[in-house]
Amino acid sequence: MPVFLETSAATFESDFTDLLNAKREDSPDVDAVVAGIIADVRSRGDAAVIELTSKFDKLDLTPETLAFTSAEIDAACEAVPVAERDALELAAARIRAYHERQVPQDQSWTDAAGATLGWRWGPVSAAGLYVPGGLASYPSSVLMNAIPAAVAGVERLVITAPTPGGVSNPLVLLAARLSGVDTVYRIGGAQAIAALAYGTQAVAPVDKITGPGNAFVAAAKRRVFGKVGIDMIAGPSEILVIGDGSVDPDWVAIDLLSQAEHDESAQSILITTDAAYGRAVAEAVEARLQVLERRAIAQASWRDFGAVIVVDDLEQAAALSDRIAPEHLELCVEEADALAGRIKHAGAIFIGAWTPEAIGDYVGGPNHVLPTARSARFSSGLSVMDFVKRTTLARMTPEALKAIGPAAEVLAKSESLEAHGLSVRARLDRLNEE
Amino acid sequence: MPVFLETSAATFESDFTDLLNAKREDSPDVDAVVAGIIADVRSRGDAAVIELTSKFDKLDLTPETLAFTSAEIDAACEAVPVAERDALELAAARIRAYHERQVPQDQSWTDAAGATLGWRWGPVSAAGLYVPGGLASYPSSVLMNAIPAAVAGVERLVITAPTPGGVSNPLVLLAARLSGVDTVYRIGGAQAIAALAYGTQAVAPVDKITGPGNAFVAAAKRRVFGKVGIDMIAGPSEILVIGDGSVDPDWVAIDLLSQAEHDESAQSILITTDAAYGRAVAEAVEARLQVLERRAIAQASWRDFGAVIVVDDLEQAAALSDRIAPEHLELCVEEADALAGRIKHAGAIFIGAWTPEAIGDYVGGPNHVLPTARSARFSSGLSVMDFVKRTTLARMTPEALKAIGPAAEVLAKSESLEAHGLSVRARLDRLNEE
Repeated sequence: MPVFLETSAATFESDFTDLLNAKREDSPDVDAVVAGIIADVRSRGDAAVIELTSKFDKLDLTPETLAFTSAEIDAACEAVPVAERDALELAAARIRAYHERQVPQDQSWTDAAGATLGWRWGPVSAAGLYVPGGLASYPSSVLMNAIPAAVAGVERLVITAPTPGGVSNPLVLLAARLSGVDTVYRIGGAQAIAALAYGTQAVAPVDKITGPGNAFVAAAKRRVFGKVGIDMIAGPSEILVIGDGSVDPDWVAIDLLSQAEHDESAQSILITTDAAYGRAVAEAVEARLQVLERRAIAQASWRDFGAVIVVDDLEQAAALSDRIAPEHLELCVEEADALAGRIKHAGAIFIGAWTPEAIGDYVGGPNHVLPTARSARFSSGLSVMDFVKRTTLARMTPEALKAIGPAAEVLAKSESLEAHGLSVRARLDRLNEE
Repeated sequence: MPVFLETSAATFESDFTDLLNAKREDSPDVDAVVAGIIADVRSRGDAAVIELTSKFDKLDLTPETLAFTSAEIDAACEAVPVAERDALELAAARIRAYHERQVPQDQSWTDAAGATLGWRWGPVSAAGLYVPGGLASYPSSVLMNAIPAAVAGVERLVITAPTPGGVSNPLVLLAARLSGVDTVYRIGGAQAIAALAYGTQAVAPVDKITGPGNAFVAAAKRRVFGKVGIDMIAGPSEILVIGDGSVDPDWVAIDLLSQAEHDESAQSILITTDAAYGRAVAEAVEARLQVLERRAIAQASWRDFGAVIVVDDLEQAAALSDRIAPEHLELCVEEADALAGRIKHAGAIFIGAWTPEAIGDYVGGPNHVLPTARSARFSSGLSVMDFVKRTTLARMTPEALKAIGPAAEVLAKSESLEAHGLSVRARLDRLNEE
């Protein structure tokens, strides 16, 4: 059974703090291994990647078979049943439409001093998307990573996706094609991240790496951060549902389980103003767990990390939610829009009874790559912004330099940076001569 | 003497690659030391911070004297001469005006399916700005870090600034006050980063840490990344000037030296279409170096990392510039706006003869915290965006769920995530019953 907390209890604050601090992920310290793998790929290139793929993925590649051929991708796409293809196409279109609105605007203006200022956005030239293999090989994640990059205007878009034993997911390849991905490499792990960051003979280096992965991938991303851009270090998935009792407890139960079924480390929390409703939802969870396909995983997650929290009112619910800063927040309450307006920290909000979180995983339009582990306090889900960067622009006229240059000179002197001041002074002197 | 390259030379490609790959920073591997410091601060809090400050900064603090008092800051502000105060106020006003234009817009719309989608931006609740001590204690950097945070609406804004031997810079304290900083702590190094990330008895934890620092600070920021947000891992400063010979070689020489004087690892490069002009600039650099206050530093930087590159035309100059992806790019050419339009990768562009880079360091308006070491390929200078995060919003109606829910169900099944599909199906079944 999950924990059942009530804000009215004397021990609530310490119980809630325990819940916040619960270490859900047992991340092994693989940093030394990963450092070795990165060094190996940097020095030996393809040979290292091929050896490591043989060792970890039981797959023998050559420089020529590192990437799927166009014909192989064609064949995989053909193998996808029409219902899945239609669903992927609908999802891709909706994700594209949402993300097209995120393209940021350039600005340029001339201020009172005569200085023309502004900025300009441009795409990164090349991006690499990591797609996990095995159980967590999700075509929807391909769309969610690749479409924002394509919308941003990234010229070269590649995927690395391990195919242990050579087994690949046709839907992943179709999703790649629908998203405008150029190349899909059959490699994974830290060796794939190293190849993307530093390049090998067969893999051209990229500027930005995104996408989830296991502990090795996460450690490798942290290590190459700075050499290339990365998105985030993702943790296990989470959902917080706030319920006032107005929504069928069975619906909320399934929504909680839709996170719990991801991973034994996933976390599902219900905050409710109604203790009886909280119990009803918990009972509905138990009932659904009896027959759920992934019940072993969902049960472990719900048992170890699940929680039902009873609060006095929705104001209190919003305050606790902000302390949790959940990845996914579902508002199963009557006045859902009003409650959404009170929330400060959440990756994504799903408003009202008819918006199960799973809609956002696939076809809603917003990105499903979202900040986990309370990082919604300071970071955002994946977006077009992850694949663009800004260049600031400034142009002075002689008059503008006269107006603001002397202040720059004063500050340069105060920082003992003489040449900084001289670079302004030399120009101002010329103006005075004229 | 710096290297002198010509694109027409047979060895150019390999010489240029060597220049790109030159390791300018000798970063000692302090990661193990930093890991120990962070663990110590996490377990012992203030006591550890105080001990480490005594050890590294030769400064004895108590929990009560960790932060400057309001009276101490008042006194420091009073001590700033009026010229410096006026210059700082002008800089603050211009930086604020520029950054106010960066505040991103919320969006909300209802699409053809009836889904209401959008996003909302909000500030991080608390930010910590690291201000280096000693030589590199720059009041301008306080403005550049704190003002974007204040414009973003960050509620609690604190600074950590080591004061070795108890010596502080009154201009730094005045800049903090002008920027709306709440508290300035007299601590630095990895212990300051650990205190900001995890909190101690006297230092409340923050959500985002920005600001430059030495190798210990950089390693600590890399380690706490994920627990809190960080801006970037900054390297030594760089300038690239593109010149067509139309601008006084002495001006360009001083501009090159204004980076070189920062740091022996700084890099100054001139790309020019005119070899004679390149030599004239190099001669002007030598002349200026004879009398520059920080000539020892500037000379080492120019000798070890400086370069003059002669190209056929400005098209070639732009292409090489994009491979360098400079932090600062100065366009000392006649058709400077046109050339600016051709550049893809640069942190900041300074357009035309009257815009020395130093203007951007102080009073131009754009931020001077910019991507170094070629990271302008994938990242941007500091901005309001670093202190806000986005929450995505979705609200389905029953009709919208009918329209797009079945596709979500198909994709959930294809990913073997049964509960995801059921969360949609339970709602669709209800609609069918009605």
